Amino acid sequence: MLDKTLRMNYLFDFYQALLTPKQRKYMSLYYLDDFSLGEIAEEFEVSRQAVYDNIKRTEAMLEEYEHKLLLLSKFEERSKLMTDLKTAVTSNATPEETIELINSLEKLD
Amino acid sequence: MLDKTLRMNYLFDFYQALLTPKQRKYMSLYYLDDFSLGEIAEEFEVSRQAVYDNIKRTEAMLEEYEHKLLLLSKFEERSKLMTDLKTAVTSNATPEETIELINSLEKLD
Repeated sequence: MLDKTLRMNYLFDFYQALLTPKQRKYMSLYYLDDFSLGEIAEEFEVSRQAVYDNIKRTEAMLEEYEHKLLLLSKFEERSKLMTDLKTAVTSNATPEETIELINSLEKLD
Repeated sequence: MLDKTLRMNYLFDFYQALLTPKQRKYMSLYYLDDFSLGEIAEEFEVSRQAVYDNIKRTEAMLEEYEHKLLLLSKFEERSKLMTDLKTAVTSNATPEETIELINSLEKLD
């Protein structure tokens, strides 16, 4: 399991197109630019609590999208298989072994 | 460009988890089981127009999800690269050529 910040960075990357501009802005400042809740609140002239609530709701939405679409989970499986595939190619695995890895990759879609 | 029915089948496959149970049911009967609008209307005891409106709205939602997340478009690119990769492996391409194809695949994520 990835640590919380890293996981949110990934989920944000995969699903940010589904968020509102405000959600995107808060998440980006908080998770990518490492702003504090207080700093974001000041920037947008809202309460710290409002920023906190918005970010918590957005985090829950991102987890729900991941629960439904599994983009991060499939990305992780695909990355692992691609590493295996590169190892197979550079260590002269047989074509059959290599094709089997490509078939596993195809099944992930 | 895929024909409309095939495209809707694909989009439904990728994004159905984001639809409501009713949307899923109508789309599945209409696109997968080839029911007519009238047959679905009868089955659910609603008007044919209500089914038509629901399906049109759902189609627009699926296109909007695709516009934002590009899952079908990336799937198509990935499929093409995997075919090229299999050809490379079975036709004894050099490891460098094969690795380059795997790198292109990785960039799609």
